[in-house]
Amino acid sequence: MSNTDNFFIYGRNPVEETLKNRPHEVDKIFVKNNIKASTYQDIKELAFQNEVPLVKVPGAKIYGLVGKVNDQGFVAQISAAKYTKFYDWAETLILSQNPAVLLLHGIEDPHNFGAILRSAAAAGIEAVIIPMQNQAPVNATVFKTSAGTAGRIPIIRVHNLNQGIKDLKATGFDIVGLDGSANNEIWEIDLDRPIAFMIGNEGEGILPANLKRCDTLVKIPMENDVESLNASVSAALVSYEWKRRHTT
Amino acid sequence: MSNTDNFFIYGRNPVEETLKNRPHEVDKIFVKNNIKASTYQDIKELAFQNEVPLVKVPGAKIYGLVGKVNDQGFVAQISAAKYTKFYDWAETLILSQNPAVLLLHGIEDPHNFGAILRSAAAAGIEAVIIPMQNQAPVNATVFKTSAGTAGRIPIIRVHNLNQGIKDLKATGFDIVGLDGSANNEIWEIDLDRPIAFMIGNEGEGILPANLKRCDTLVKIPMENDVESLNASVSAALVSYEWKRRHTT
Repeated sequence: MSNTDNFFIYGRNPVEETLKNRPHEVDKIFVKNNIKASTYQDIKELAFQNEVPLVKVPGAKIYGLVGKVNDQGFVAQISAAKYTKFYDWAETLILSQNPAVLLLHGIEDPHNFGAILRSAAAAGIEAVIIPMQNQAPVNATVFKTSAGTAGRIPIIRVHNLNQGIKDLKATGFDIVGLDGSANNEIWEIDLDRPIAFMIGNEGEGILPANLKRCDTLVKIPMENDVESLNASVSAALVSYEWKRRHTT
Repeated sequence: MSNTDNFFIYGRNPVEETLKNRPHEVDKIFVKNNIKASTYQDIKELAFQNEVPLVKVPGAKIYGLVGKVNDQGFVAQISAAKYTKFYDWAETLILSQNPAVLLLHGIEDPHNFGAILRSAAAAGIEAVIIPMQNQAPVNATVFKTSAGTAGRIPIIRVHNLNQGIKDLKATGFDIVGLDGSANNEIWEIDLDRPIAFMIGNEGEGILPANLKRCDTLVKIPMENDVESLNASVSAALVSYEWKRRHTT
């Protein structure tokens, strides 16, 4: 990801003001790692309350982001898109219509993420839910790759995957994990229920701890000894299998 | 596409020898545009016979490909993969099993092309057929994006799309074009016949002249005013819809 994909706000006060006034537009806070944590308790608190990741990095990283400016060791990375809050979104749901969402297990490539948003929007998926870690933020590259559709589907950022699973289950969703070792093929399972499809990340798929948290596992069958599909292709296939069943 | 994705052979004699001895590994011939055509009739003839595109380019283009070498104005771009000949492949077909192929309408992005090969191989598609023009060659980027699956499915290069359509029809395939304005959805049409799915290119879809050559047009329905899907996603969806019907 190039740095020009994001907007940056730098300097201690500007970063704190941004966290106060428009926290949902902040993707991440970078703090130079030689600044004592006790001296920016206020910023840490705001970041935590608003579920914005805060990372400590070397001065060279800060320099790489914003160049030679008076950053005072504080940089906020501003997202090109606003995220929707889980419970704001959940209030608008009609569960009896058996909606589907995608729960991404950390998609790190912005091109994959953009392609997933585009296919999900096209298939009528209700929302895409992403964790904070190991996940590409919604930036200019994602917008471009999504062919502008990133704004047409709610994107919900949860603290971590486990929190997302808990919130979804509490709301009434069954978690269906995509895994090559599953017994059932995607065509065989019941989709007449509120479903969250968990899509594994590009390299590792779904981690074992999260596989255990799924209600059902399904696989997409593969010929010719192909070991896996591209994450954006897997997401498109489950999204459209869901659409097919709710159309035909 | 970076130049390092390909191997290059330069110099008049080396290019001619390569065209004679292993023409199917040659993607393209570049000839400096100030060299008189009458002086390399032999190379033109070999390129034509072996269906290798020959393009005339400025010296700066040649320099960009191979750097400061004694190229004599002749460069052969060598592909990372061998192509299969249409009629060699057609001889191995069992038409009664209703095979499917993808006929690409010029996929220019090597990442898209690699992703298409991967999904097609996974879905058990019999071959991917590509035209010579406006089509990414099988190079190192395509291999990488295909996750190594590029070698597991025959890739057939035809002189142009029209030739591919004629050859496929003559062999017994119906041409099914993917087009957003089609009346029928992909889920509705008969797939119990030998089928060639024509996948439009990234920018323009399928040109009107080629739409007319299709036996059937189908669309993938889209919600949320999404205008089109990524070409590799469209290819994966039709490939897997075909697989679903031949599995379940």
